[in-house]
Amino acid sequence: MNLNILKNINSPKDLKELNKEQLYTLADEVRNAVINKVSQTGGHFGPNLGMVEATIALHYVFNSPVDKIVYDVSHQSYPHKILTGRKHGFIEKDKFDSITGYTSHVESEHDFFIVGHTSTSVSLACGLAKARDIKGDKENIIAVIGDGSLSGGEAYEGLNNASASGKNIIILVNDNDMSIATNHGGLYKNLAKLRETEGKAEDNFFKALGFEYHFVKNGHDIESLIEVFSKVKDIDHPVVVHMHTIKGKGYKDAEINKEAFHWAAPFDLETKKSIFTSSGENYGDITDNFLIEKAKKDSRIVGISPGTPMGGFNKFRYEFKDQFVDVGIAEEHAIALASGIASQGGKPVVSVMSSFIQRTYDQLSQDLAINNNPALILVQGGGISGSDVTHLSIFDIPLISNIPNIVYLAPTTKEEYISMMEWGLEQNEHPVVIKVPGKGVISTGEKVLADFSKLNTYKKVNVGSKVAIIALGAFFELGERVKAKLKDTMNIDATLINPRFITGIDKEMLTELLANHEVVITLEDGILDGGFGEKITRFYGAKDMKVLNFGATKEFTDKVDVKELFNRYHLTDDLIVEDIKNILA
Amino acid sequence: MNLNILKNINSPKDLKELNKEQLYTLADEVRNAVINKVSQTGGHFGPNLGMVEATIALHYVFNSPVDKIVYDVSHQSYPHKILTGRKHGFIEKDKFDSITGYTSHVESEHDFFIVGHTSTSVSLACGLAKARDIKGDKENIIAVIGDGSLSGGEAYEGLNNASASGKNIIILVNDNDMSIATNHGGLYKNLAKLRETEGKAEDNFFKALGFEYHFVKNGHDIESLIEVFSKVKDIDHPVVVHMHTIKGKGYKDAEINKEAFHWAAPFDLETKKSIFTSSGENYGDITDNFLIEKAKKDSRIVGISPGTPMGGFNKFRYEFKDQFVDVGIAEEHAIALASGIASQGGKPVVSVMSSFIQRTYDQLSQDLAINNNPALILVQGGGISGSDVTHLSIFDIPLISNIPNIVYLAPTTKEEYISMMEWGLEQNEHPVVIKVPGKGVISTGEKVLADFSKLNTYKKVNVGSKVAIIALGAFFELGERVKAKLKDTMNIDATLINPRFITGIDKEMLTELLANHEVVITLEDGILDGGFGEKITRFYGAKDMKVLNFGATKEFTDKVDVKELFNRYHLTDDLIVEDIKNILA
Repeated sequence: MNLNILKNINSPKDLKELNKEQLYTLADEVRNAVINKVSQTGGHFGPNLGMVEATIALHYVFNSPVDKIVYDVSHQSYPHKILTGRKHGFIEKDKFDSITGYTSHVESEHDFFIVGHTSTSVSLACGLAKARDIKGDKENIIAVIGDGSLSGGEAYEGLNNASASGKNIIILVNDNDMSIATNHGGLYKNLAKLRETEGKAEDNFFKALGFEYHFVKNGHDIESLIEVFSKVKDIDHPVVVHMHTIKGKGYKDAEINKEAFHWAAPFDLETKKSIFTSSGENYGDITDNFLIEKAKKDSRIVGISPGTPMGGFNKFRYEFKDQFVDVGIAEEHAIALASGIASQGGKPVVSVMSSFIQRTYDQLSQDLAINNNPALILVQGGGISGSDVTHLSIFDIPLISNIPNIVYLAPTTKEEYISMMEWGLEQNEHPVVIKVPGKGVISTGEKVLADFSKLNTYKKVNVGSKVAIIALGAFFELGERVKAKLKDTMNIDATLINPRFITGIDKEMLTELLANHEVVITLEDGILDGGFGEKITRFYGAKDMKVLNFGATKEFTDKVDVKELFNRYHLTDDLIVEDIKNILA
Repeated sequence: MNLNILKNINSPKDLKELNKEQLYTLADEVRNAVINKVSQTGGHFGPNLGMVEATIALHYVFNSPVDKIVYDVSHQSYPHKILTGRKHGFIEKDKFDSITGYTSHVESEHDFFIVGHTSTSVSLACGLAKARDIKGDKENIIAVIGDGSLSGGEAYEGLNNASASGKNIIILVNDNDMSIATNHGGLYKNLAKLRETEGKAEDNFFKALGFEYHFVKNGHDIESLIEVFSKVKDIDHPVVVHMHTIKGKGYKDAEINKEAFHWAAPFDLETKKSIFTSSGENYGDITDNFLIEKAKKDSRIVGISPGTPMGGFNKFRYEFKDQFVDVGIAEEHAIALASGIASQGGKPVVSVMSSFIQRTYDQLSQDLAINNNPALILVQGGGISGSDVTHLSIFDIPLISNIPNIVYLAPTTKEEYISMMEWGLEQNEHPVVIKVPGKGVISTGEKVLADFSKLNTYKKVNVGSKVAIIALGAFFELGERVKAKLKDTMNIDATLINPRFITGIDKEMLTELLANHEVVITLEDGILDGGFGEKITRFYGAKDMKVLNFGATKEFTDKVDVKELFNRYHLTDDLIVEDIKNILA
């Protein structure tokens, strides 16, 4: 890799000395550093490539970290990281792991927040601005937000308030005409008109909210960026700089296939091929195929995605255009929309990532559950993982299962998942949410014909004694292993239960267990606090039964190896059997 | 009450026959019916008075319930109720209770949702529109939304998507230039300009989002309303009708004092005086007075309210204008803003109703807790109550206490509340949330000097044996009564514990109890599922201790008398002692 200029850039001040030609050379080198790392580790690709020149111009004009830049969702912060003393994490292979995928004030004084969810930058920047104002300081506060993130309600709340503050705050809108997938919403017609007219179109969204407005036609032209940033630097009121960039700029395949290169798995730079090959079935495709078959026969089915159509609607979205709505990154709207459709006999299906359903608690409760409308919601990718701290998916059980009226189901196999979707679509009594296993697909090949109308009826898979294992959803397989190990090591024939329902307890079955069981254990793929197991424990609170709950500790973990977490939380058959032994002793 | 016209109006079709003069007479009678009821029962006053003429015009032009009208937050739906077969609930005193304070599809075929939180109408209406489109039907879908509700992110997400749908949807913006309190935000400058220019101002917010736009200068002029509604009826694309109304129209005191008459307690129509007199101290004033004293000495303190400044900042907002931000009805922004301020050494204090903190789970988790910024959040009015189903406040413990890093505290008295606020402001380690008791103020008069830095240390108030009572926050007083009754009836000297911390357990103290206690009971003012007591039960799951958890069942209740609920949930000293007796037997 050529690092003629970058090798001397250790902090933003180093680039302030460069001439125009050197700035462009630096842009090439920064871009190559991003490609170098992401092609090997995977990561956000297109958004970062589009921000290279703007980041250089920001640091050329502003004085970070006194002037404070907040990057929305962090997907576009890699050039910033490279220019603020963290280039080693992109250049040196053995240091890739030292730099996280998002901004972090723990990592650098040039970052101010750990951010991984969209649409938060303007609100967080408002906080920095208010803190500045009460101190009587004068620095610039800059929020960088992509056009995709502008579809989220929090971004709008932030803009509405930033404008009202009347003080210095600079919103840099990085408009690459793409969200993760295509943008959807009235706003995007406005942005398109503004791009076409070089910012001169009537009824400017940002001006309507009260901002001074500047347009930058080519967000890869460092000189015009420097010009406009210099103009708005130290401004005494709120301003929006709207710049047009190209997602994936400088890497041809990413420029062409913007959605696929939004986030890239590790790939070979020569062959362009992914280094990992897909290993058979996944729950996204299973969902997609099932819903396509259903929709062919039932025009009432409406697929709804909050900006992530690849998760369950990858083919559906093209095959059933009139029965599909991508609402943009707008989970609140997605749930309310589903409730509205279901209220009139439609069959809405929302597919949403576990981490992102957090953005819509109140709509689940008020718009959906109080109205008891039979929408079907698929929570994808939940469970304990080695993910970034911002994308942990261990909170959906406490979040969803403690809302009245909602039926939250946990399938243990592909076939059970399909039967739960079938039932969810057929019934008209409840909002139904399904916790789709986050890990590999387990298939028995045998169709599950299940009626879930009798709520909270668990399924006894093995009738044993002494120990009962209640193993929820993705952890049923762990339950099977614990059962086998109890037999092998202690000659205990344990009862094994697939509870299927997260939202309630099977009092009858739990009462039966009292007759010839001493210990009940619960297994769940999420945090224990507020979770499934605690409901079981509460039932047995004053009865003669020992209960052990297994699941994750309430903590934020950050890219901790999942094996380490499973050891930490005693989620291996060895450790669980050991714990049971200690109690029986 | 004069009911010359209204007496013959039993459904919307009846008013279609009326002439102009009769429509205005009807308006007077509807207005009087609203005043008649609200002055006796309390309820939303100003917003309903402002919607009288528009509601008459809507029903004159459109064909409800085939054409479907969705009212945002229901505060403006009383005239609609009166005109759709529910006038008895406003006229006949003994039938007041038969009609709820919000729209409800259970109550009338002219309503489509139970709604009580703001900013949801456009999204819900999008659902009705999509259901219509997949069926191939042609009716009109109308969302009525106040200007105040437009500050919420969900409303924006809804508008952005409604516009993109490209189909019939009519958004009626009822602009009375007021939220509950004054409006705040850039949007409101735009609305003001539009009102001043009769809709002709440049950079129209609604046009920017892609809507066709109509302005109605006088939202109390039935003829011009009928004219514009007739024009947009059966339109084949999204349209906004922006009408200017007067909050409290037709009741002089409400027109003048708009905030006070947003919601009115029962009052005497002659004297204008409230029928109930305020009974001494309340937690709103205690908060207000405390923060004012603090802010006098500390310019870092910033009060933040999501549109409800009367709850904790009633005087503060006027005394410390630079240290106060009303963000509008924008809870998501409020929490992110607080996190941003706290990240730079500011001392943000958010005061928010329990029911409304539901709108900001993801911001509590991502913007605040992951970043571990020391903001202080006061959750007001929580606990079991006889409230509307839309304003139940029994979910905040599962919602907040299962997020890592947050310290959620429950004070038992005024003095303890103040000491918790003191500590929350002083410390720099954690986001701190305080569950302000929702019921009457208990004051010991003795200053509590407490350091809460040693997290999850409970306070033993009485050292006894056999039975231990862990009584959280507002239910500590119930714990005291249970303790007394155990002494009286069973001669048990029970241990009494004030846990203070909701978010964790005091393992040391709980372990000590094992020595000479047989039963532990937990008391909490919220639902049991995912709550505080279950954490205690889990701790004792495999130990020799019986545990009974007392709190609310996971259910939606609707204006159920609180006494009935306390009986249903065994939350009286008699019933609790009975339950303990059964276990000890």
